[in-house]
Amino acid sequence: MATQHELEHPNKAFGWAARDTSGVLSPFNFSRRETSEKDVAIKVLYCGICHSDLHMAKNDWGISTYPLVPGHEIVGIVTKVGSKVEKFKIGEKVGVGFMVDSCRSCQNCSDNLENYCPKPYTPTSGGKHSDGSITYGGYSDSIVVDEHFIVHISDGLPLESAAPLLCAGITVYSPLKYFGLDKPGLHIGIVGLGGLGHLAVKFAKAFGAYVTVISTSPNKEKEALEHLGADSFLVSRDQDKMQAAMNTLDGILDTVSGDHSLLPLLGLLKSHGKLVMLGVPTKPLEISAFPLILGRKLVAGSAIGGLKETQEMIDFAAKHNVKPDVEIIPMDYVNTAMERLLKADVKYRFVIDIGNTLKPSS
Amino acid sequence: MATQHELEHPNKAFGWAARDTSGVLSPFNFSRRETSEKDVAIKVLYCGICHSDLHMAKNDWGISTYPLVPGHEIVGIVTKVGSKVEKFKIGEKVGVGFMVDSCRSCQNCSDNLENYCPKPYTPTSGGKHSDGSITYGGYSDSIVVDEHFIVHISDGLPLESAAPLLCAGITVYSPLKYFGLDKPGLHIGIVGLGGLGHLAVKFAKAFGAYVTVISTSPNKEKEALEHLGADSFLVSRDQDKMQAAMNTLDGILDTVSGDHSLLPLLGLLKSHGKLVMLGVPTKPLEISAFPLILGRKLVAGSAIGGLKETQEMIDFAAKHNVKPDVEIIPMDYVNTAMERLLKADVKYRFVIDIGNTLKPSS
Repeated sequence: MATQHELEHPNKAFGWAARDTSGVLSPFNFSRRETSEKDVAIKVLYCGICHSDLHMAKNDWGISTYPLVPGHEIVGIVTKVGSKVEKFKIGEKVGVGFMVDSCRSCQNCSDNLENYCPKPYTPTSGGKHSDGSITYGGYSDSIVVDEHFIVHISDGLPLESAAPLLCAGITVYSPLKYFGLDKPGLHIGIVGLGGLGHLAVKFAKAFGAYVTVISTSPNKEKEALEHLGADSFLVSRDQDKMQAAMNTLDGILDTVSGDHSLLPLLGLLKSHGKLVMLGVPTKPLEISAFPLILGRKLVAGSAIGGLKETQEMIDFAAKHNVKPDVEIIPMDYVNTAMERLLKADVKYRFVIDIGNTLKPSS
Repeated sequence: MATQHELEHPNKAFGWAARDTSGVLSPFNFSRRETSEKDVAIKVLYCGICHSDLHMAKNDWGISTYPLVPGHEIVGIVTKVGSKVEKFKIGEKVGVGFMVDSCRSCQNCSDNLENYCPKPYTPTSGGKHSDGSITYGGYSDSIVVDEHFIVHISDGLPLESAAPLLCAGITVYSPLKYFGLDKPGLHIGIVGLGGLGHLAVKFAKAFGAYVTVISTSPNKEKEALEHLGADSFLVSRDQDKMQAAMNTLDGILDTVSGDHSLLPLLGLLKSHGKLVMLGVPTKPLEISAFPLILGRKLVAGSAIGGLKETQEMIDFAAKHNVKPDVEIIPMDYVNTAMERLLKADVKYRFVIDIGNTLKPSS
């Protein structure tokens, strides 16, 4: 059935969409808008699978609209540019992350912090364009995006590696920078070793930190130390070792969404230390004023990053060889991948090989 | 009965002490140590009454040793200096705050952050000197302190005004500086209008902020606006006005020790806003990760300030005419003052006129 958006938009597009709260994805014909003055049309080559794609596909947050085409870790090649596009040319490698629009006039947008635009910004998938049409994400053959929301992918970076950087990468890079946790010699803790956590280890190491991974699973130690390059490993349930590590960390990135106590983490921080939440536990966080006050510690949060910083992060990753560990999958494996993602059965990010495996329906 | 400390210390001293958990204070003869090389002997003229004096006198925190001589907002005149004292001369006006010693060798001490010395620092009252003797505070005629822990009182500042600055003042000044909330034009919220809160309003105004007082008591509005110079007033239980004020504040200093929810305060903050706890609620704080993450907001704490910053604060207060509102009382009114303090019946800080009203026991 043709929807309003397909009728209005001239460019045929094809992807995979969830149709209901089962979250099961299946082939979906739709359309993309005309490439207007500031727009860039992109042929999608790779798209990372973020955990939030799973939540959106199943409407876990109650904000999804079906059909829902997920995907906001998009890498591809420019196929067309509008008449006033200044930054991109046909044939260039580019990336699109979590946002495709924002108000462009508020203080945050003026400060290159579109990710904190209070209007708010328009997400790449499951949001609404200013014309009222739904945004369809990167599990699709093409996308049309205002050039402001596109970044260059540096030559040194394999495209499949670049994809997860556009959400997972910037989500860990931005707080390391903003909270001053990017200085060489700092001792940084990373809680959780999933898509975000493993990239946090790599970025923190690239900044010159001594990195401790904090995990509930003792069996991740070898992986953390030998494969990801962390300097030490703490099992959060080992009270003796946690006690011995008190007051040693300058900062912690907490990537865990499951409910967990923050008090032991605050104890690990030195005075003036910073605990930054990136995952969103559903229950309220319990913290005590005492360690905050007596050690001038802080608990904060951070959400993705602005476009300027995303470009900076991509360039930094290329220069310092920061690459996510990815498992490349074909498009028709996506539902299995989603099931495995739910069980945290991936090291560490699925990336869909859109370019080679997304076949138009007949 | 002569205690060990009296026997060891040569200088007779006289003050008022609590003897048990009733917290009732009465005259007390004791002694002060000899003025050693780096020591300064001070004749106490004024001493502020801090809410923590009340807690210590009653052993509310389970850490008090009796007899307990409270007082850590001490102003007086130098009467003697040790042979290696460099910063002070006999006759000068000086102040002593919350600390009289610290390890002097840790990173925090090296960074002029003695207040975060993990050893920890030696509090002015109810702590232990390195020789094991108990520290007696400023509700007394004299005190002997290492010059490092003494500040100059600028000429422009009345001595009775200077006293509360040495704890309440630095407690609000330091976080305004550290968290970057001292820039002109910022919109700062002050929660609670007691000893700390009323000084927070005055310092924030002196930094050039637009200041909103947030209180549970509508009847404090006139006082906050007309007397203290705040720019606006919010009753925290007025949901309509709280809603209208969402996302307007750059920072909040929360001076309230009673248990209260932080969520409405986080809502008042703009993105990147900072909520700094100065009071210590006894229950754990409930916060939600969502506002922290979506707005990159932070919750932090702060405790008094280092000596270098305390001197800076005193000089700033003198230059900008920041003075606490004080009620000067005679020494023998102290027990009544403590009762009134418990009921928050003071605008805004009691200061004991030690110099004129502390009479040696016969």
